[in-house]
Amino acid sequence: MRLSRYFLPILKETPGEAQVVSHQLMLRAGMIRQTAAGIYAFLPLGLRVLAKIEGIVREEMDRAGAIEVLMPTIQSADLWRQSGRYEAYGPEMLRIKDRHDREMLFSPTAEELFTVIFQNGAKSYRDLPRNLYQIQWKFRDEVRPRFGLMRGREFLMKDAYSFDLDFAAAKHSYNRMFIAYMRTFARMGLDAIPMQADTGPIGGDLSHEFIVLAPTGESDVFYDEAWLAARDTSAVDADDADALEHSISGLNTDYAATDEKRDLAAEAAAGDRLKTSKGIEVGQVFYFGDKYTKAMGVTVQGSDGQPVTPLMGSYGIGVSRLLGAIIEARHDASGIVWPDAVAPFKVALINLRVDDAACLAACEGLYAELTANGVEVLYDDRDERGGPKFATADLIGLPWQLVVGPKGIANGVVELKRRATGEKTELPMADAVARLLA
Amino acid sequence: MRLSRYFLPILKETPGEAQVVSHQLMLRAGMIRQTAAGIYAFLPLGLRVLAKIEGIVREEMDRAGAIEVLMPTIQSADLWRQSGRYEAYGPEMLRIKDRHDREMLFSPTAEELFTVIFQNGAKSYRDLPRNLYQIQWKFRDEVRPRFGLMRGREFLMKDAYSFDLDFAAAKHSYNRMFIAYMRTFARMGLDAIPMQADTGPIGGDLSHEFIVLAPTGESDVFYDEAWLAARDTSAVDADDADALEHSISGLNTDYAATDEKRDLAAEAAAGDRLKTSKGIEVGQVFYFGDKYTKAMGVTVQGSDGQPVTPLMGSYGIGVSRLLGAIIEARHDASGIVWPDAVAPFKVALINLRVDDAACLAACEGLYAELTANGVEVLYDDRDERGGPKFATADLIGLPWQLVVGPKGIANGVVELKRRATGEKTELPMADAVARLLA
Repeated sequence: MRLSRYFLPILKETPGEAQVVSHQLMLRAGMIRQTAAGIYAFLPLGLRVLAKIEGIVREEMDRAGAIEVLMPTIQSADLWRQSGRYEAYGPEMLRIKDRHDREMLFSPTAEELFTVIFQNGAKSYRDLPRNLYQIQWKFRDEVRPRFGLMRGREFLMKDAYSFDLDFAAAKHSYNRMFIAYMRTFARMGLDAIPMQADTGPIGGDLSHEFIVLAPTGESDVFYDEAWLAARDTSAVDADDADALEHSISGLNTDYAATDEKRDLAAEAAAGDRLKTSKGIEVGQVFYFGDKYTKAMGVTVQGSDGQPVTPLMGSYGIGVSRLLGAIIEARHDASGIVWPDAVAPFKVALINLRVDDAACLAACEGLYAELTANGVEVLYDDRDERGGPKFATADLIGLPWQLVVGPKGIANGVVELKRRATGEKTELPMADAVARLLA
Repeated sequence: MRLSRYFLPILKETPGEAQVVSHQLMLRAGMIRQTAAGIYAFLPLGLRVLAKIEGIVREEMDRAGAIEVLMPTIQSADLWRQSGRYEAYGPEMLRIKDRHDREMLFSPTAEELFTVIFQNGAKSYRDLPRNLYQIQWKFRDEVRPRFGLMRGREFLMKDAYSFDLDFAAAKHSYNRMFIAYMRTFARMGLDAIPMQADTGPIGGDLSHEFIVLAPTGESDVFYDEAWLAARDTSAVDADDADALEHSISGLNTDYAATDEKRDLAAEAAAGDRLKTSKGIEVGQVFYFGDKYTKAMGVTVQGSDGQPVTPLMGSYGIGVSRLLGAIIEARHDASGIVWPDAVAPFKVALINLRVDDAACLAACEGLYAELTANGVEVLYDDRDERGGPKFATADLIGLPWQLVVGPKGIANGVVELKRRATGEKTELPMADAVARLLA
């Protein structure tokens, strides 16, 4: 993409409306704009990151055997009356009347609809287990939206719902999502710690929140510092229920809990290793048994011919919130430092002298070659000096900067800078291309 | 994907609620389910087709130089007051009050928001031309939703908005979208005829609707039968304004118009070649000049330092409606006949005897090999007889059926059937794989 034809409205000043660094940087880097309180438009650069995050979430869900569907955003209130939640849900639910005065709502979550859709398609024990998921816009009418995408009103969420015949199978479904979440967040360059979370009136211990540590988080969290060492889950066989349970037990031996689920004895045992922090919740896995299937009268025929009420879990990831969480975890004084897997482009190609024929020819050649080989390049071909170009590249945080200037070209070299470390290397053009293709 | 683990609720009976064949077939093939009047859930098979259509639209928009963004679905009424449309828009607009009693709405279209976002990022004549687009859910509260996805209330739309400095440039932007639409619909296997359409109070002749001929369409259309011969637009150079204008003029010499724009003299001239039909509108391109930029006070600095009011066009494609339109155009008595480019899977792999070790081994081998080579396979591994398996494969309309039975396997052959023609070929397994990989 040529920057001269792109739409990247960089802000030089930090907007006063933004309190946290991720919100500030997303505004400054031309990624998002607020269009109403807690509601945002995604500009081209922001949308590219959103799509990358969405892609990773989708791949890991598919790999875990979940099947993608897509529910509408607008639902009937009647559906929510079947579960008893329509009256119970607070003012965060955006309630709507259509032209025929029917009560509708903008989905804040979708347990009811997935339960109905599941029942429509599943009749027998042979149709279980199933895990259905969607990546769709939700709306929660927060009384005080803030922190940009981290507590917005309209947000993109991945929500999955598992259906099983008995508790052992349901636990396996839960474990599959648990390990999928570990992998998902690791691929995005995040240390997201699974913490025991409150299960509310349903009880039990089968709920974990995945929390990214950040001083701007809204939750207080308590954890054993051993969690800060990365956990490699790549070799876990998620198809083998016993092996998976064993792996997850092994992962979870170190203490980590949110405020509501503190265990003072475990904290005392952790001793000096106990740390406290603020955290950003980026995902939650939750087992709730027959709460919805029972209320809504959902059964399938068991292998003995008798009706069975399926047991459910739900599994959420805050897809748009992750943009904020990743920036909170990965930035420096100059701007964003994108992990490779979610960067909007891989390379900023910087032409220091657009009026120099040799520089121009070199840049055009590099742009054509890299693009033809599938490398995502943002080519700064604007008629500007080097200073603003470097500042823009640092601010938007692409993993690599490929800098082409007249002096280097005279010597047959270009400069390659790694954004995360600041390391710069002068090297022949062909070598720079080879490194970017590797 | 193994059918035994998929979610494909096939209906044996044609549902009484569905009046048109595309709606009937989408319900029967387990692609969609209605969740409220005119509101649908996409089941896995339907979502795959939707994603294919979306992918083609995105590729052709990107190729035409449009830049993708994403606007929120919920917008502020204040924004629409700036253009004067809030009161003027009819009861199709879903009006909402949030918890603070602020007037909001579910976007039925997005001229206002794109205009504001454009102004936020574009300050000078150097920032034009630009064409920004999104693929996002819209809501129009139809008084009588019907025909499934073809006239639903919540629907997926691609909407693009171009911004230019003068009429010549705006016409070129219009032409770029025009040719992109020709290519988009051709790739989906559709004959979509561009027809002069009503421009309403704005006037002028720069509006075309792209219409798929179908007896179930809602518009009356009149056209020269010469339009039924395919037009090859693949070689048109869209960067060259004159060449592009010339190509489009050449395409449009034959008469075609919607009811509101009939030209009786042109119809008389067409003589016997004049045909009339019902049609389904799948896209529209529309030039409206400074209607919104003027009302909303949007300017950029011209090359002479004076303010210039940008001229706009808007360009819509009914992404979810296209599912219906394609099925209306491509089906037979047994079910859907997907064009290759939008098929949910390329191949139905049918095991006629899951209890036969040789059949099972052959199928597992074929499934692994095709999948590893990137071929999308729906593998019917259910414990069912051949009859229902063939009926399902015909109904869901995948382009190829690869049939594995004990008799063939004993002779080292499988059967490959082309859904569109019914042509069947017996051939060695390796040859079948080679043909599917070609």
